[in-house]
Amino acid sequence: MEEDKFIEIAKRAKAASKKIATLPSEIKNKALQNIAENIKKHSESIFDANKKDLAEALSLVESGELTKSTYNRLKLDENKMRDMIQGIIDISNLQDPIGRVLLRRQLDEGLILTKVSCPIGVLGIIFEARPDVISQISALAVKSANAVILKGGKESFNTNTVIMSVIQDALKQTEGFPENVLTQVFSRDDVKNMLSQDKYIDLIIPRGGNSLVRFIKENTKIPVLGHADGICHIFVDKSADPQKAKRIVVDAKTQYPSACNSVETLLIHKDFKYADELLQSLREAEVELIDTPQSWHKEYSDKILAYKFVNSLEEAIEHINEYSSGHTDSIITEDSANAKIFMNAVDSAGVYHNVSTRFADGFRYGFGAEVGISTNKTHARGPVGLDGLTIYKYKLEGEGNIVRDYVDGTKTFKHKDLSV
Amino acid sequence: MEEDKFIEIAKRAKAASKKIATLPSEIKNKALQNIAENIKKHSESIFDANKKDLAEALSLVESGELTKSTYNRLKLDENKMRDMIQGIIDISNLQDPIGRVLLRRQLDEGLILTKVSCPIGVLGIIFEARPDVISQISALAVKSANAVILKGGKESFNTNTVIMSVIQDALKQTEGFPENVLTQVFSRDDVKNMLSQDKYIDLIIPRGGNSLVRFIKENTKIPVLGHADGICHIFVDKSADPQKAKRIVVDAKTQYPSACNSVETLLIHKDFKYADELLQSLREAEVELIDTPQSWHKEYSDKILAYKFVNSLEEAIEHINEYSSGHTDSIITEDSANAKIFMNAVDSAGVYHNVSTRFADGFRYGFGAEVGISTNKTHARGPVGLDGLTIYKYKLEGEGNIVRDYVDGTKTFKHKDLSV
Repeated sequence: MEEDKFIEIAKRAKAASKKIATLPSEIKNKALQNIAENIKKHSESIFDANKKDLAEALSLVESGELTKSTYNRLKLDENKMRDMIQGIIDISNLQDPIGRVLLRRQLDEGLILTKVSCPIGVLGIIFEARPDVISQISALAVKSANAVILKGGKESFNTNTVIMSVIQDALKQTEGFPENVLTQVFSRDDVKNMLSQDKYIDLIIPRGGNSLVRFIKENTKIPVLGHADGICHIFVDKSADPQKAKRIVVDAKTQYPSACNSVETLLIHKDFKYADELLQSLREAEVELIDTPQSWHKEYSDKILAYKFVNSLEEAIEHINEYSSGHTDSIITEDSANAKIFMNAVDSAGVYHNVSTRFADGFRYGFGAEVGISTNKTHARGPVGLDGLTIYKYKLEGEGNIVRDYVDGTKTFKHKDLSV
Repeated sequence: MEEDKFIEIAKRAKAASKKIATLPSEIKNKALQNIAENIKKHSESIFDANKKDLAEALSLVESGELTKSTYNRLKLDENKMRDMIQGIIDISNLQDPIGRVLLRRQLDEGLILTKVSCPIGVLGIIFEARPDVISQISALAVKSANAVILKGGKESFNTNTVIMSVIQDALKQTEGFPENVLTQVFSRDDVKNMLSQDKYIDLIIPRGGNSLVRFIKENTKIPVLGHADGICHIFVDKSADPQKAKRIVVDAKTQYPSACNSVETLLIHKDFKYADELLQSLREAEVELIDTPQSWHKEYSDKILAYKFVNSLEEAIEHINEYSSGHTDSIITEDSANAKIFMNAVDSAGVYHNVSTRFADGFRYGFGAEVGISTNKTHARGPVGLDGLTIYKYKLEGEGNIVRDYVDGTKTFKHKDLSV
């Protein structure tokens, strides 16, 4: 799409974001219920569209232009469809993240400050093959009262188009729901357009592989919520329980090796007595072990694990703070003092003790819905729920109060916190 | 400074940030007390250095290269010195923003999730003439356990150098306080260096004029906390109390016209009966009124006020959402329904009712210390206290828990919130 056309879309999204910002919870939840029902009602046309995409994808797999795993992510089946629909209903049942009072303070007689959660504005979502993302993100946006411009992968073009039109119909049927809250764009140019519109787009959320996320982070001034890499570590301390170590490391590497929260590097204390058994159990679980990796920065996303012996807890912490992507890192130890040092000193979104790194996930944390996992050091970190799509504003209500009275000493501030 | 030298500084700051992150409150507070005492002890050398800067600045004022107001901001006097010292003591008395438990949740038997506040990492501070900023920012950084690289204005070179050396001496005298937490850089190149080191610097905070902030926002991928413009509005509604309107508008324009929270645009409902008197009282307060401004985007920072009549509350809201910098906007009305609509619909960090926009300030909000005022839509918005220099991490403690058990149904999540 040409840039000026895109700017028109972005402007309309901005205008829509002001309208949805003040929408009552009931209308947003009604919209979500309508979306869920409409997807259920039109699931056959969605499957049909998906079959078209799959047929095209299959020929690309055969010619080697598409990976089998992308093909699998593209495929909708009855289970994914049921999860999609249930996911939207779950989001409608969550507490409204907007309008929560975060602070109430009496600055002085008749001068009340209130900090209230509110939406961010316009989100730009860029995602790859998975067509279930479109309904999930749309539902999160509606609930958190943000407008969204979505750009899906070309592999799921037909599926995305049908799902989006089903969602738009549901929104049109919802009384009082504003236009232009959701807009889908299609062309490769639109990624570039999106990344340059910092005037209208407040937050970019990429959902996809490392290279997509890295490209986006490198090419925009808009804040980006997400993570490029998931280089997670497990440190097996001297005093680690060998059974726990084995269970956790095998789970963290093999339970779903392509997940971002899978372990990529195993650090073993040189005085841990059961190192051979631990490595043997990994081999038995068909994990390829690498003791001289080309780079400690590599994310394998496969049943491959780099490992290294370290001389001390401190060396493990230093290695992790150097090479971790700041996603999730775990210590296995029976020494609670060491666990405490590790969890305080390791600078990652998740710091774990005697737990598999695979727990780093919004649903497992009990957030109900997940926007993604962030390795940012500002705004939102770790698994991000609906809260990550909110910010706050300060409301100040007075009776004609002016600053001069406080500067010249006629009045003084009281700063008394009130119950929220 | 050459880029590789700067990278060395940035690396050392990163390493220092890991050390200060886990420092007990007592050491941080002791460091702050030592800084305050040392500044008091060496105030004469600080004044001497300041006199050198002032002498050089005076010749620049005479040749027209520096404004008189920059000269005034540069000047340290007994009052500013006392405020500087008291400011540091005040920060030492605030609650530690680090290590606060924000959430505790039992995910399952023996599997406890804790969300804990922690520092961001390395801050890059770029500030202009005011030399009191250096002690304030240093104190905020120490309290919030962040490392800082500071780049001051060349006008205050001598003052900054002496203050920084006094602060560094105080930190050296503080037992257990790590090296390299604070680093000062001097050259213009170092601004460029700072903005490009997104690997080591986590947040940039500019403290200075619009053009500095705008330049920084345009030239870095690092998150920037601050505001370029302060284009604040007051809307005088049909039912506004004329006395309140007059007091508030005059205060918001004249109490400190160059402040970012001063009003720049006055919108008056066409049916407000006391418009002539309101405009007359502004003229009497020596405010220049402009009814056909070249741009509604202009920040005058002076006793100049653009104004316009509007037909409705909706028109006022639309104008503000189009032209406001998202800083602070106020409605004067006796109609509480209109106030509510305005405060919900105006998308700014501060939305006020019957109050002067000049209240937008961390100290007036009772935050104790202020990092600055943010018009960002993510991380921190409005006046930012110490909290804006923190993020959080998730700690997960278990007993050997693995994800496979929850996927295959052996175990199920309980998600029970615990008291914090």
